[in-house]
Amino acid sequence: MPRLVMKFGGTSVADLGRIRAAAGKVRREVERGYDVAVVVSAMAGQTNQLVEHVREAAAPPGSNGYGLYDAREYDAVVASGEQVTSGLMALVLQEMEVPARSWQGWQIPIRTTGAHGAARIEEIETEAMARKFDEGLHAVVSGFQGIGPDGRVSTLGRGGSDTSAVALAAALEAERCDIYTDVDGVYTTDPRIERRARKLERIAYEEMLELASMGAKVLQTRSVELAMRYKVRLQVLSSFEDLPGTLVCDEEEIVEQNVVSGVAYQRDEAKVTLLNVPDRPGVAAAIFGPLADAGVNVDMIVQNISADGMTDMTFSCPTDEVANARAALEGAQTDLRHGELVVDDEVAKVTVVGIGMRSHSGVAQKMFAALAAEGINIKVITTSEIKVSVLIDRKYMELAVQALHKAFGLTTA
Amino acid sequence: MPRLVMKFGGTSVADLGRIRAAAGKVRREVERGYDVAVVVSAMAGQTNQLVEHVREAAAPPGSNGYGLYDAREYDAVVASGEQVTSGLMALVLQEMEVPARSWQGWQIPIRTTGAHGAARIEEIETEAMARKFDEGLHAVVSGFQGIGPDGRVSTLGRGGSDTSAVALAAALEAERCDIYTDVDGVYTTDPRIERRARKLERIAYEEMLELASMGAKVLQTRSVELAMRYKVRLQVLSSFEDLPGTLVCDEEEIVEQNVVSGVAYQRDEAKVTLLNVPDRPGVAAAIFGPLADAGVNVDMIVQNISADGMTDMTFSCPTDEVANARAALEGAQTDLRHGELVVDDEVAKVTVVGIGMRSHSGVAQKMFAALAAEGINIKVITTSEIKVSVLIDRKYMELAVQALHKAFGLTTA
Repeated sequence: MPRLVMKFGGTSVADLGRIRAAAGKVRREVERGYDVAVVVSAMAGQTNQLVEHVREAAAPPGSNGYGLYDAREYDAVVASGEQVTSGLMALVLQEMEVPARSWQGWQIPIRTTGAHGAARIEEIETEAMARKFDEGLHAVVSGFQGIGPDGRVSTLGRGGSDTSAVALAAALEAERCDIYTDVDGVYTTDPRIERRARKLERIAYEEMLELASMGAKVLQTRSVELAMRYKVRLQVLSSFEDLPGTLVCDEEEIVEQNVVSGVAYQRDEAKVTLLNVPDRPGVAAAIFGPLADAGVNVDMIVQNISADGMTDMTFSCPTDEVANARAALEGAQTDLRHGELVVDDEVAKVTVVGIGMRSHSGVAQKMFAALAAEGINIKVITTSEIKVSVLIDRKYMELAVQALHKAFGLTTA
Repeated sequence: MPRLVMKFGGTSVADLGRIRAAAGKVRREVERGYDVAVVVSAMAGQTNQLVEHVREAAAPPGSNGYGLYDAREYDAVVASGEQVTSGLMALVLQEMEVPARSWQGWQIPIRTTGAHGAARIEEIETEAMARKFDEGLHAVVSGFQGIGPDGRVSTLGRGGSDTSAVALAAALEAERCDIYTDVDGVYTTDPRIERRARKLERIAYEEMLELASMGAKVLQTRSVELAMRYKVRLQVLSSFEDLPGTLVCDEEEIVEQNVVSGVAYQRDEAKVTLLNVPDRPGVAAAIFGPLADAGVNVDMIVQNISADGMTDMTFSCPTDEVANARAALEGAQTDLRHGELVVDDEVAKVTVVGIGMRSHSGVAQKMFAALAAEGINIKVITTSEIKVSVLIDRKYMELAVQALHKAFGLTTA
């Protein structure tokens, strides 16, 4: 029988009423003839509460701060959240006369690296589950967790349940991996900014990756990467309404391809410029090495034209990482002998994404014209094969999104 | 190094403050040179909440009743409670600079029967834990759970953490198994009834078994049986105060043996008499078979003197099982052809326990005299090697306990 993976996140299993609603969707797919593996997160709020317990346990009594903690114990405690949901979901399915059993990560097993708290899936052994499918028993799998090489419970890090679902779909060779969430699909842009945003029927993996990393937080980036690598067809659907969702798939499955599929944004960006950096080999490494060591997520990088052997180096990063970036660069000042550090933390990033760009020229030009028509100045530009991003003043962000959404014909007719 | 098992129940780990207090006691034993295995229950209230979730999940939506549920899923859900506590206890110990790690039942492994929800421990493999002791790593073990032959999490039933602790102490050949609880030891009787009750320094396994099954609910009966079989020295101590506890041990370890060690009672008993039962072989089986099938916990049984081929049969059971007992006996009436069923549900049982009775006669006589002196009528008597029990009117129960406590010299000087 064809197999289907269905994943329900924390808000979709927040209480028994919602678990029942989710189970109803599972039953429908079972009735359609699928062997279903349901992947569940912890009930909303549970993980946060468990993490809080861990932090308090690891801190010296009476201290307000948090102590360092053993990530293996963190994993043992936090993984209990999914364990509860998977058992409850199996019980609800049984009550609905859908034969099902729960599977913890260590039972399947889902083998991961030993990086507790941020493990990566290395292998999923599906033989035992496949045998149970043959007996007519559907699977309810605790997401977000596996077993490390040390034989202890490991977790994949926040949002890891999406990754669990995709990896399981790949291992089971499932026909599709349906991700049920609190949005009903992927939109051409954020409907809170542009109310005429349109739900996409289909979107290519590459586009989804750009949108995910651009802050359209529908799916975890890692899960989309994994889906792309193993060609897992991902569907994003609403847990709460019965609406068609968005299929994230190979571009070959997308017949009518728009040049631009969506407009993404990132509100809290900062632009940092190092003035008068010596223009010699190795200088970029001397700058970005310390930033990487300090955990600063550098996004766009631009080097200005060199004059007199000196240049300016500009990069962007989230505003809440500016202090870290400044400290890292000041620590490296002796090596760099750079001049002033100029920070503009009132910028935002706006991006147009579309695999159609590969075969269509003029997208960047059209974007710049649309922004210019609204009097919006562009501060930094970067491009890739399938996207164009610009940094602009934050106050123009909504206006820019709306203008680009219209300029590229994304607005609902 | 000598090994020690320390068990903390739900109220002793109810919150992080209490987990820290418990960890302090563990640290003290570590400093004394023990390799310690700490066995923990779920935080007080957690198990009840998880059980409630399971019952709701298994019930049809909108129903007020509870559905039947899959005990394997019950176990998966409920065992998460101990998983959380063991991780937190390990973190707190680490914070106190006591090297420790958590062990789930399946990790050790603690192998159990497949009777999910009421499994029995079959084997504990201690090799892995012993290796970790050699590395200086103390153990924090999730009580109440193991792994069944099906590779799934099993639980031992309510109160199973005591059993986990004793079984682990036996497997580890621990010097002692300390049970920290909300009472500070075993008393000569219930101090709420007789305020001059005295804490026993030592008590023999057999006596403790009689007291436990008599309603002195300090330890689970199963855990005491197990301790007796494997000669595990059990100590009952307070989690909250720093007081000497009571050692439950082999009678050979008890130098000054009292004839009677304690007075136990069971308040809510009923006395049921079947009048005019045919006095022929097989009649007892015909009565007590149906009662056992109906799950009635029959305690004392007395058969009166036979006259004209007919006899009366009397037994006692908890008052809340009388309705069940009546239904079972009425169903069996055709076979039995018994006459009237007379129920007295206003009785209580009082018991004196002491291994010294084996070598001392006159205990029963002394007991009857003490009760007679208070004008208390005895309704049923049963005896064993180390105890004498009587059924009396419930209204005299406290008086009887106090009189016997005094008569056998148990009162504090």
